[in-house]
Amino acid sequence: MIEKFFNPNSVAIVGASPKPGKVGNVILANFKKRFKGRIYPVNPKHEEIMGLKCYPSIKDLPETPDLVVIAIPAPKVPQVLRDAGEKGVKATIIITGGFRETGTEEGRRLEEEIVKISREYSIRILGPNCLGIYDNWSGVDTFFLPDEKMMRPPKGKISFISQSGAFASALLDWMAYRNIGISRAISYGNKIDVDDVDLLDFLANDDKTGLIIMYLEGLKPGRGRLFIEKAREVVQKKPIVIYKAGKTSRGSTAAASHTAALAGNYSIYKAAIKQAGLIEAMSFDEIMDLSKILLTQPLMKGRKVYVVTDAGGVGVMLTDALTTEGFLLPRSPADLKEELRKVLPPHCIVENPIDLTGDTDDDRYKVVLDILLPRDDVDAVVVGALPQVPGITSKLADYLAEARKYGKPIIAISIGSKEAEKFKDLLEDKGIPVFESPERAARALRALYLYSKIRGVARE
Amino acid sequence: MIEKFFNPNSVAIVGASPKPGKVGNVILANFKKRFKGRIYPVNPKHEEIMGLKCYPSIKDLPETPDLVVIAIPAPKVPQVLRDAGEKGVKATIIITGGFRETGTEEGRRLEEEIVKISREYSIRILGPNCLGIYDNWSGVDTFFLPDEKMMRPPKGKISFISQSGAFASALLDWMAYRNIGISRAISYGNKIDVDDVDLLDFLANDDKTGLIIMYLEGLKPGRGRLFIEKAREVVQKKPIVIYKAGKTSRGSTAAASHTAALAGNYSIYKAAIKQAGLIEAMSFDEIMDLSKILLTQPLMKGRKVYVVTDAGGVGVMLTDALTTEGFLLPRSPADLKEELRKVLPPHCIVENPIDLTGDTDDDRYKVVLDILLPRDDVDAVVVGALPQVPGITSKLADYLAEARKYGKPIIAISIGSKEAEKFKDLLEDKGIPVFESPERAARALRALYLYSKIRGVARE
Repeated sequence: MIEKFFNPNSVAIVGASPKPGKVGNVILANFKKRFKGRIYPVNPKHEEIMGLKCYPSIKDLPETPDLVVIAIPAPKVPQVLRDAGEKGVKATIIITGGFRETGTEEGRRLEEEIVKISREYSIRILGPNCLGIYDNWSGVDTFFLPDEKMMRPPKGKISFISQSGAFASALLDWMAYRNIGISRAISYGNKIDVDDVDLLDFLANDDKTGLIIMYLEGLKPGRGRLFIEKAREVVQKKPIVIYKAGKTSRGSTAAASHTAALAGNYSIYKAAIKQAGLIEAMSFDEIMDLSKILLTQPLMKGRKVYVVTDAGGVGVMLTDALTTEGFLLPRSPADLKEELRKVLPPHCIVENPIDLTGDTDDDRYKVVLDILLPRDDVDAVVVGALPQVPGITSKLADYLAEARKYGKPIIAISIGSKEAEKFKDLLEDKGIPVFESPERAARALRALYLYSKIRGVARE
Repeated sequence: MIEKFFNPNSVAIVGASPKPGKVGNVILANFKKRFKGRIYPVNPKHEEIMGLKCYPSIKDLPETPDLVVIAIPAPKVPQVLRDAGEKGVKATIIITGGFRETGTEEGRRLEEEIVKISREYSIRILGPNCLGIYDNWSGVDTFFLPDEKMMRPPKGKISFISQSGAFASALLDWMAYRNIGISRAISYGNKIDVDDVDLLDFLANDDKTGLIIMYLEGLKPGRGRLFIEKAREVVQKKPIVIYKAGKTSRGSTAAASHTAALAGNYSIYKAAIKQAGLIEAMSFDEIMDLSKILLTQPLMKGRKVYVVTDAGGVGVMLTDALTTEGFLLPRSPADLKEELRKVLPPHCIVENPIDLTGDTDDDRYKVVLDILLPRDDVDAVVVGALPQVPGITSKLADYLAEARKYGKPIIAISIGSKEAEKFKDLLEDKGIPVFESPERAARALRALYLYSKIRGVARE
């Protein structure tokens, strides 16, 4: 059923408009651009919009559309919903705001009315007060922002579910700019019907989704237990990264006037997140850091991490950051030291963090990785290669990519300017995630370790 | 005396070389490019380098240079230092590594020898095992990385002192790429003589420096008390942002083999940082976030912060982040609500966080700021304007800049792509710092509040 929201054969857009800037105008234009199925504009004031025949009401459509998108003022929504019900429509996205989130009696009443109608006719509703769906495969796109205001990301394996439309659009725009691929994005606003549980269920079985990001203010009352059960099941197949908004009591109050959400007590959510096996991102920056490591790296068996760098200071920073996040940075055992000394110049430091020093070349990294990664007492390697170092070239990226054959996590940090950005892009193209600081790399690796425990791969 | 390191009239470069890639080649080339004083290459193997007369030894120079830069192998350094002493030289930068940091008996012995010579002749030494000095005013530049590998930032008010050369070069490169201005950068490596106390003393009285960044692994033994006293004095004039490396015991061990630093017990440093009135950055990202708010914003009187946004979700995230950092987000008082209701459309939320909603224009921001900022119960305003919102234009940046007249901190967050970057550049040009996430904005504002307390402006 939920499938129809993402992959309909036909869609009706109620409130479609020829006027530039109108919500119903942007939505129709976006569907025309990318959607492959049949499109029916609905608006009693027009006979044709953008070259498409326009219908006065849903009842007049030549077929029952798989999906109805509603973008008209709130007081008119109940009648349209009834028309849809009569026509046999089973899925609607209500973009319109002006319901319970306004805090007014009128808003509350309207919302209750549409809930009642949806039950009467068994229509599933996404929204109201939302941006709806952006599906990179079918071309469903109710995000009513033109391309100039919000870039659309390339196709990829990340899907996300957001209680905030602004968050969803900012994240899409952000990902597009950084060329990070997306599968499906959902903004559900007041979620009077379709909610996190329904969407997780759909995304769990969706082979186009490899990782799920959630921005959550609050669950619907009574859905907590089901949410935890569903999530526990999903995370055995793919990771879920969650950002919980409304953590503080002032934050929950703000959430209430935003999406009428009951943000609840954070400590309860915190416990649920843990029980459900979700990975929590504590800041906006972290959401993408955690996602990129979880999407690209193999699970890790333990906490033994080695650092390989060409800059002593970076080694110290990484050591601090990694041990703070609970990793062990074992002292290099005697046999490892001996092996490293055989292949490295005498001024290199063979103790972990291994310092190849500022006169390193790419090859030193290669020989060290080939020694470290096959060892049973090495669970992951963090590379701190400064692109400012004269001997570092693009060959290093090839070496790191080759080292993926050992089946252990390899991540890198890079700090600097043009050279650093180029190096980062090169590495990420080859599946090695690169982080902007030692602290962010360490927090990302911790998430991978947590997820490895959830999947039963990591020892305690 | 320390002044001569930064602003010499003449400099000798021992180890100057015509061979591309050699340290003494890069340093000479960089001095030729930007330094306005007299330059003397010193190398017995050459008569001329890059069109400059080359001298066999310091003793043969036609004058006593204000500064001597030494970039030759460690075993040869003592003799050169003696020659410099005989010639009457008072300031030297020893770039060369291979001393105590190697952990070898030979390295330790060589380091002790140069300490002895420097005392005998009263020569001040910066280094060894360092990158030395980059001075954006005089053109002193011993950072031996060519422009292609490390960009040079524009002139500005930030100076920094770093125990790690790699950190210093990465930070310079990073700042250059983001067009952030620098005054003077110092990498002192093993700091056998000139240290943090000397440099703070110099920078405190330097009118070209408005803020100081420090990367510190450890102080020299016996300098703790003096450092605290000096820092307490400096921070009453300009803020000092410190990043302490070697926080964990594994990190301190790594620091020992890096710059022979005694990174010591972090809790002792933590107490000293507090006592000295330094602002501690907990991650690499934070260093620049804290610096830009401290450099551009007026001090704040209290903890009452208002959020103005056009996106409910961003309002919730900011509320969480700010209250987590100890700020009060007062509920809007009745008189404020009434005043806001008079000027805003009825669907806007006048409760703090104030939500102008997605159909806002620039003018709504202007009227709200003009109401909020003059109030005694408002200490700072955080703006969460999403550039994805259709009604936001570049005029908003002008309005925010105008609002600086109220003498209170105004900061912004921006998340997204091209539009977001443009908006950020525009705002930062006008002195409004912009942060990449709600959490980073909140941590930066907390640093400003801490510094306001240190300066006696903020009430407890």
